[in-house]
Amino acid sequence: MKKVLIVGGVAGGATAAARIRRLDEQAQIIMFERGPHVSFSNCALPYYLGGLVKSKEKLLLMTPESFQTKYNIDARVNQEVIRIHRDEKKVEVKNLETNEVYEESYDVLILSPGANPVVPPFEGVDLPHVFTVRNVVDIDRLHQFVSGFNVERVAVIGGGFIGVEVAENLKEAGKEVALVEYAPQIMAPFDEDMAQILHKEMLDHGVELIVGDGLKKITETHIELNSGKQVEAQAVVLAIGVKPEVKLAKEAGLEIGELGGIKVNANYQTSDPSIYAVGDAIEVYHRLTRKPARLALAGPAVRQARAAADHIYGHKQENKGVIGSSVVKIFGLNCAVTGLNERAAKEAGIPYDSVYIIAPDKVGIMPNSNPLHFKLIFEVPTGRILGAQAIGKGNADKRIDVIATLITMGGTLEDLKELELTYSPIYGTARDVVNIAALVGLNVLHGDYKQVHVSEVRSLVEQGATFIDVREKNEFERGHLVNAINIPLSELRQRLEEIPRDKPVYVHCRSGQRSYNAVKILQHSGYANVYNVSGSFLGICLYEYFKDVTTGREKIVTEYNFK
Amino acid sequence: MKKVLIVGGVAGGATAAARIRRLDEQAQIIMFERGPHVSFSNCALPYYLGGLVKSKEKLLLMTPESFQTKYNIDARVNQEVIRIHRDEKKVEVKNLETNEVYEESYDVLILSPGANPVVPPFEGVDLPHVFTVRNVVDIDRLHQFVSGFNVERVAVIGGGFIGVEVAENLKEAGKEVALVEYAPQIMAPFDEDMAQILHKEMLDHGVELIVGDGLKKITETHIELNSGKQVEAQAVVLAIGVKPEVKLAKEAGLEIGELGGIKVNANYQTSDPSIYAVGDAIEVYHRLTRKPARLALAGPAVRQARAAADHIYGHKQENKGVIGSSVVKIFGLNCAVTGLNERAAKEAGIPYDSVYIIAPDKVGIMPNSNPLHFKLIFEVPTGRILGAQAIGKGNADKRIDVIATLITMGGTLEDLKELELTYSPIYGTARDVVNIAALVGLNVLHGDYKQVHVSEVRSLVEQGATFIDVREKNEFERGHLVNAINIPLSELRQRLEEIPRDKPVYVHCRSGQRSYNAVKILQHSGYANVYNVSGSFLGICLYEYFKDVTTGREKIVTEYNFK
Repeated sequence: MKKVLIVGGVAGGATAAARIRRLDEQAQIIMFERGPHVSFSNCALPYYLGGLVKSKEKLLLMTPESFQTKYNIDARVNQEVIRIHRDEKKVEVKNLETNEVYEESYDVLILSPGANPVVPPFEGVDLPHVFTVRNVVDIDRLHQFVSGFNVERVAVIGGGFIGVEVAENLKEAGKEVALVEYAPQIMAPFDEDMAQILHKEMLDHGVELIVGDGLKKITETHIELNSGKQVEAQAVVLAIGVKPEVKLAKEAGLEIGELGGIKVNANYQTSDPSIYAVGDAIEVYHRLTRKPARLALAGPAVRQARAAADHIYGHKQENKGVIGSSVVKIFGLNCAVTGLNERAAKEAGIPYDSVYIIAPDKVGIMPNSNPLHFKLIFEVPTGRILGAQAIGKGNADKRIDVIATLITMGGTLEDLKELELTYSPIYGTARDVVNIAALVGLNVLHGDYKQVHVSEVRSLVEQGATFIDVREKNEFERGHLVNAINIPLSELRQRLEEIPRDKPVYVHCRSGQRSYNAVKILQHSGYANVYNVSGSFLGICLYEYFKDVTTGREKIVTEYNFK
Repeated sequence: MKKVLIVGGVAGGATAAARIRRLDEQAQIIMFERGPHVSFSNCALPYYLGGLVKSKEKLLLMTPESFQTKYNIDARVNQEVIRIHRDEKKVEVKNLETNEVYEESYDVLILSPGANPVVPPFEGVDLPHVFTVRNVVDIDRLHQFVSGFNVERVAVIGGGFIGVEVAENLKEAGKEVALVEYAPQIMAPFDEDMAQILHKEMLDHGVELIVGDGLKKITETHIELNSGKQVEAQAVVLAIGVKPEVKLAKEAGLEIGELGGIKVNANYQTSDPSIYAVGDAIEVYHRLTRKPARLALAGPAVRQARAAADHIYGHKQENKGVIGSSVVKIFGLNCAVTGLNERAAKEAGIPYDSVYIIAPDKVGIMPNSNPLHFKLIFEVPTGRILGAQAIGKGNADKRIDVIATLITMGGTLEDLKELELTYSPIYGTARDVVNIAALVGLNVLHGDYKQVHVSEVRSLVEQGATFIDVREKNEFERGHLVNAINIPLSELRQRLEEIPRDKPVYVHCRSGQRSYNAVKILQHSGYANVYNVSGSFLGICLYEYFKDVTTGREKIVTEYNFK
């Protein structure tokens, strides 16, 4: 009879335990959890603040009792594994309620300790109104504090998934919220251009968003930032990031990877083959960068846990590595991402190009048809898909799931172009956003036309470049680039003489469809140096808005137009 | 200068015309449309009846004028191409307004005539209250008739996409609706088990659904069915199916395929290389059955049109064949399907198996978490994915798009199991429905356990088979299989002696998760002949409901439980 010990009782640990029971009715399975709860919905924690999850009890998916009755698993809460004796195949366990320490032997040990919130030694981090969010106890404390103590303003430090979700939920709960991010943008999985859309959404919903500024200290009434800025806050949530919890593994002499996570092989065995490790504490292999990566996501954790359990019982699993897919709701926007963004592709040294398109998520005549902002990153010259980012009121997650599937299968722009996706006017368009992105990507890849990105427009405008806006006159009048020439597509063939032939010409419309046709007309009419503005006028407005508003710099559009 | 004529001005024709213009600014492009409108949203027609599309003008995406100004395309409405003179490369065109006939020469001719509604010679089909739905004129006539003439009851004949959408929209418009389908089920792309869910949804929303009965004749006040049943109806919509419009092609001596569509090669050239054909009128190659197929869908039509245009200009496109992906809303349900269903796999002679799972579309504690019914069909023994069907209040289309992508890329159950899809509790579950289906599929493929389908349960019950219901007692009491033994999963290990060892045992719970664990416990406890009921109690109730209600046969459940 095998005896399996598991450290950590949330996603990875609980999954491993249940899987082992299905593989082996006889095994003795003990799962140790330091906290008072097992198997809670980690990812749902922020939604308790905003009221989407009505009670903290709902966050608990299983109890030690249900583990016992359903799985015959001994789930021990408030018990911390404090030492591993690898030579004796034993662990020391501390009962945190009694402080008693006892030993348990193992045949196999699975580590799923997770990751800890990073808490740098800022002045004031130990004050009682400073919180982190890792588990049900944390979120309950925060919830009680912000609802009970006359808290009106909360500062959230860190614009990653947790920071953003906490900020949104506190706002939904009626608080004034400041969100502070050290980097120039929130939500690092998104590229800078796409992040501007998120910034605008935050502003539009009344969050005081401060980017490019870091926390310096916390006082009882304020936070102070590196810039000297003071922000009033009766509660502070630190969501700066997480670091793998490797203390136990390290002290046991298990190998730690270059990124600070527990190192595992293809089967999630640590450097000691009797000890497996899964979840946020480990380093995984990124199938696109071909380098180690850290990925604090629940999906990969449960897959790793199952693979480890299977391996213990001799079932080998293929390890495909990870690509990283995630989604977050930011007020009215669904924001999804998979694979590599531009920064990651650059860092990995992979030659790439990208396209940014804005296409309706449903047929335009349908109620709730909305633009979907879609960025596709592909390898040059193979056209292999590397990553995508989608933001919109509609099903961004659907489009990104398709791309994630395609990336996993090694798909290219040609494959994406041809994908037969479900279509009806209330669900999408006959040629889906992702198909269109592939067509545009192929045009760029094959040099059928050249493009500039929205991030390049300001500098071109400042250099006096020639922009042709091919929207209709009434659209142009509702806002346009300060020096653009308005020649509607419908008049372009008759007004070619207004367009200079001796210098580059940059063409845009509202969202890119008409400008594509205009670019082809100009090319066929002998214009050699024509560029399409990827993202078009809508993209330009969104790209410029947040920085314009927060810095008061000179605008390059006469008026924003987000319609 | 190339002269291109196009027959048909909707999806395929309009796309080909626009693409050719982008490839060739000089080409003379003439598009002939027999009806008064070009480029209307075919798939949105039914939604004008229900009011989702507010005016018929909204259905028109482009006009002859906008084709002229934007694309320099001569779009001629009310003009029918009545003859092709291949030897002279000319067509005869009849102006339907003046009855004048004239000729146009071509270098290249593209046929995109679409498909016609099938109208068998029933008695009464020519009565003025009998309608078909092909274009804006048709839907406008129907809309005017049902809203203007005191029409209270409408009979829709045919339970395919158009029939179902028309029935739903008429219901939404406040009419009494009878939907009549000759086959034993509506929506042929779905298998019989999944179709029962759709039947229930129709009933629940007050549609009088009659399956397995055909139209015999139409009178001014009623329709009469083959069974002799009379159904009152002041309007009748025939949506029996469509047949490719091949008259023009046939008369010109172009080759017609075995399914009655225009035969084309990989580049959508007909047997005359100067004549291309695209859209609903042609036969395509099904990449899974490796046989010709007909596919009346807008997405493939626009892709074919683009490929044909590209080929005219020497750009060869890979022809990957089709898999067929579609989605339809039926009242509160999103119903999506891709690839082969069981019937199609059987017909194609492909060895296959299937699993039917019911999993939450979002984490259960989230508002609007609902069960998603998901059926996955895979090749045996390779595990290659052949098709899937998804039905639920949530994003069925998202899951099917993922499967469509996987099928296109030749993916297997192993690939699907590992897919890293976006996850957050408000969008899905850490292990998505599709991942779970793959895991279940692998269990079945590898013989880890055996299953029976919901369609087999009635006969097993009648034979007195042993069913173990592992739900909790209070769930059991709210409805169960008439002869099931209730042993909750939590008591199973203690009550094994109640389960016979000498005969097959069929295990179910509510949706399949607990029964899976129960099956493993029984297997590990020496039970050799254990079956899991794929679809579980919820699936059984849904499978039985419609037939029970409409036939009054003896129920095999004490009470339906759809929660």
